[in-house]
Amino acid sequence: MNGIQEAVGSIPSGSTNRDTMKHRKCGVFSFSAYGIMVVRGSENTSLERGLAMTDQKNPRISLETLERFMVDVLVGVGLPTEDAEIVADVLVTADKFGIDSHGIGRLKPIYYDRIKEGILNPITTIEVLREGPTTAVIDGHHGMGHVISKRAMEMAISKAKEYGMGMVAVRNSSHYGIAGYYTLMASNAGMIGITGTNARPSLAPTFGVEPMLGTNPLTFTMPSDEEFPFFLDCATSASQRGRIEVYARMDKEIPEGWVVGNDGQSRTDTHAILRDLTTGDAALTPLGGLSETSGGHKGYGYTTVVEILSAALQGGAFLHALSGFKDGKKVPHALGHFFIAIDIESFTSLDAFKKTTGDILRALRASKKAPGQERIYTAGEKEYLASLERTKYGVPIGESLQKDIRELVQELDLDYDFPF
Amino acid sequence: MNGIQEAVGSIPSGSTNRDTMKHRKCGVFSFSAYGIMVVRGSENTSLERGLAMTDQKNPRISLETLERFMVDVLVGVGLPTEDAEIVADVLVTADKFGIDSHGIGRLKPIYYDRIKEGILNPITTIEVLREGPTTAVIDGHHGMGHVISKRAMEMAISKAKEYGMGMVAVRNSSHYGIAGYYTLMASNAGMIGITGTNARPSLAPTFGVEPMLGTNPLTFTMPSDEEFPFFLDCATSASQRGRIEVYARMDKEIPEGWVVGNDGQSRTDTHAILRDLTTGDAALTPLGGLSETSGGHKGYGYTTVVEILSAALQGGAFLHALSGFKDGKKVPHALGHFFIAIDIESFTSLDAFKKTTGDILRALRASKKAPGQERIYTAGEKEYLASLERTKYGVPIGESLQKDIRELVQELDLDYDFPF
Repeated sequence: MNGIQEAVGSIPSGSTNRDTMKHRKCGVFSFSAYGIMVVRGSENTSLERGLAMTDQKNPRISLETLERFMVDVLVGVGLPTEDAEIVADVLVTADKFGIDSHGIGRLKPIYYDRIKEGILNPITTIEVLREGPTTAVIDGHHGMGHVISKRAMEMAISKAKEYGMGMVAVRNSSHYGIAGYYTLMASNAGMIGITGTNARPSLAPTFGVEPMLGTNPLTFTMPSDEEFPFFLDCATSASQRGRIEVYARMDKEIPEGWVVGNDGQSRTDTHAILRDLTTGDAALTPLGGLSETSGGHKGYGYTTVVEILSAALQGGAFLHALSGFKDGKKVPHALGHFFIAIDIESFTSLDAFKKTTGDILRALRASKKAPGQERIYTAGEKEYLASLERTKYGVPIGESLQKDIRELVQELDLDYDFPF
Repeated sequence: MNGIQEAVGSIPSGSTNRDTMKHRKCGVFSFSAYGIMVVRGSENTSLERGLAMTDQKNPRISLETLERFMVDVLVGVGLPTEDAEIVADVLVTADKFGIDSHGIGRLKPIYYDRIKEGILNPITTIEVLREGPTTAVIDGHHGMGHVISKRAMEMAISKAKEYGMGMVAVRNSSHYGIAGYYTLMASNAGMIGITGTNARPSLAPTFGVEPMLGTNPLTFTMPSDEEFPFFLDCATSASQRGRIEVYARMDKEIPEGWVVGNDGQSRTDTHAILRDLTTGDAALTPLGGLSETSGGHKGYGYTTVVEILSAALQGGAFLHALSGFKDGKKVPHALGHFFIAIDIESFTSLDAFKKTTGDILRALRASKKAPGQERIYTAGEKEYLASLERTKYGVPIGESLQKDIRELVQELDLDYDFPF
């Protein structure tokens, strides 16, 4: 683990984890599957350096404080404490992993506001519609996606413990945070975890220009003998809105191949794209990009796999019906998810599996690097590195998030002394 | 299905399925996930038109004749008739679907020659090493991958019928042909089918240049209410050797992003690439291409998922150990695969699942097309179109394949009157 220790050690020593921490510089940033990540040695260093977020404008807050704050906000808006703790744990795990697009940044717009708008139910009622030895279908009745999904993966794990495999399909759920939270539950239980979810339409099929599919993550976690599991938590799109917003903040054009315009061509005009993604006049592309030549039809295929698995097993909504609007009015998103747990000890010893997985990952990292590249990563490594850094130094809070937090403190009359 | 009828109808009418057919012209070709496909309306039409293979040089042979010929060859080289029929059925299914890279073209180099070299066992012995309600590990003892894999998926389906899910991990297998053959078995049984396999190292990790991973397909099939299922059978690499060979035959440079050189840059010098892929001085890239910006780390992640699932559940070989060489000598490839079946009726009615799947696919196809695009496809559609065309007109046989076939006829003293 020398490489990892070294990377973490590159953060200035002698720092303390103070919520009021300022003027900190940290390592080189690079994109993770979701968003932004604190690690060294990557491509685009000059660009990513521009993303360093720990400075006067972006003070850090400890994970503990963030989590406590989120619980208070969620209880304040009507969640039972137990449920608020689950939601906050999912969100703060994203912040810990450096997946800033899915952490506290979503607390107000995606959860708090939607609860207040009446399209997300703070009281989660889970109904088991159908159950077999290894399978179940549950209805979340538009409650909190995290609470529903944690229960769903617990059921899948419990079935896998008994029968070797388990799969739960979920209907009428809502945004469940990082998909990887649930697959980590499986890997922590000595299992392979798989999940996926549909999402509001934003991605066009190959040869198409209309936003039809979600960014639909297809996520896998597998235990290894290292300090972190193999953890692939990524959208099946080439990119996503959160990354485009980062370019907008820097007034830079986005790379070719992320977005297709109405004319079928790649678009890079960042600010206009953000507007047109909302109106449907631009669409995200699948992993592999715009053309069959670059493999876009494969990514589009995997996005469709997730769309089908998320909807067809539970008779739920799909494609345009997930937009969150009906007849011009906001309505629940009615998302569907699926959760799979595979018990490793039904096949082999857990230690043997972990060692093979670790051996594969170590061999990949040790393979010949491209000139100029300092290291090769495996999936989950950047999230692990970020977790070490953020556990120690806290989470940088940008300006628009500071505003959200201030508003929540005020609206709910909470007692927090944030440094902004 | 009008679009499909129309596409098939575009082949000159009045043709008959004669093995000696010559001078035929057919529709526009485009790439499928694996290789080449007979369909109209795609990108790169001028390039793909160059691939039209039904002409004087590429006479067509009927599927029935091809299959019978393959059975005879395989029996001739030592397979029991029953096993030869399985292998031939897998191979001819690839030819039927237009996946020419995985059909009769592989009969001699990948199966016949390897059996004669003593690194592939024509007598397949399947040993069940471990079995639970939903799981099993089987050892193929370096027999025929198709025979082993068909048995493995049958076991997974049988377990899923009883318990809702089934998964079988396979060790010491060999090249199993198109992955989709096995997932189609599941969808034909009213199930979701998933499979993957490792393969000899040819793909470099993101930021790396060394061939470490295989092109590792991750394949899904799901029943729909249409005439063909959702069928995503693709490698997790951006491209593959077979496609590069097509460019070589046309003396054209390959597109950017398919291959990485030792210098870490994209290479397009087709002929030199084919040499350097063999020596390890060039490597394929993952789906998403060379960089994290284009999403290559996601494709690399999925390739690694398949590598782990194919090896770690059965304690088998991985990465370099799959090269087929040891101490300069040819050895069995010792491939690993996994097969998953998920019983749909454990969740919902099969008809409801099929209708939702069909509705999703129809909506995708009916969505707004990019200017100049005639149609949007869904996964499995091109294979279906090819199967209609090839069932009617047979499979075009190129020059190097004609040579292989002539050699096999001669070596085994078979009685076939091929038109070449």
